[in-house]
Amino acid sequence: MDTGTRLQYDVMDPECPSRVVLQRIGDKWTPLVVQVLKDGPHRFTELRRSIGGVTAKVLTQTLRSLERDGLVSREVFAEIPPRVEYALTDLGRSLLAPLDAVRGWAEQHAGDVLTHRDRFDSVR
Amino acid sequence: MDTGTRLQYDVMDPECPSRVVLQRIGDKWTPLVVQVLKDGPHRFTELRRSIGGVTAKVLTQTLRSLERDGLVSREVFAEIPPRVEYALTDLGRSLLAPLDAVRGWAEQHAGDVLTHRDRFDSVR
Repeated sequence: MDTGTRLQYDVMDPECPSRVVLQRIGDKWTPLVVQVLKDGPHRFTELRRSIGGVTAKVLTQTLRSLERDGLVSREVFAEIPPRVEYALTDLGRSLLAPLDAVRGWAEQHAGDVLTHRDRFDSVR
Repeated sequence: MDTGTRLQYDVMDPECPSRVVLQRIGDKWTPLVVQVLKDGPHRFTELRRSIGGVTAKVLTQTLRSLERDGLVSREVFAEIPPRVEYALTDLGRSLLAPLDAVRGWAEQHAGDVLTHRDRFDSVR
């Protein structure tokens, strides 16, 4: 039995690749892109409209990173004009449950966080 | 019954505060700080050592944001020299489960992501 090739990943180790992965999936736009693609493939303009507040440049960079990491696929259809669609891969789909948990927390506790911010700012 | 004060939060709305909250808890260091504080209160230097790879300045900013958001408490003990301890609040503790899910994903799939990156980079 070859268990020697099984590496132990640990985000608390600064040298561990899982830390880079954690910081990538937690970036500013990734959770929102994944959230939109949950409902099926989207074109760039649809994605941008659904997310809102993201520039074309930053969305392009985010999608390219997600494609590079194997979380999103990019398919070009030979039409005139060419159509490009982005979709979650199986790996990307496996991110849905953990990201849903974080999104749910944000939506459930946003009010508490805002209350704390107001209180914090008012005593400074 | 007053249900009028119950707001519906939605991270897909760029104006919704829950989006800011989502982007804050997904920032680069928050998941790692929360992870360390899971085991109990820590002093600044202990936190910095446990996390690794974070500068004092950035850790200070991260802790201040977490304190402002009500996720972390900062307690000063009147000793000589003064001792300062950081701990998760109840609200911060409620973040453990969702962040654990994301961390688990990162540790489980870091290998897949790295494989995809190598493949992506090799064809460019």
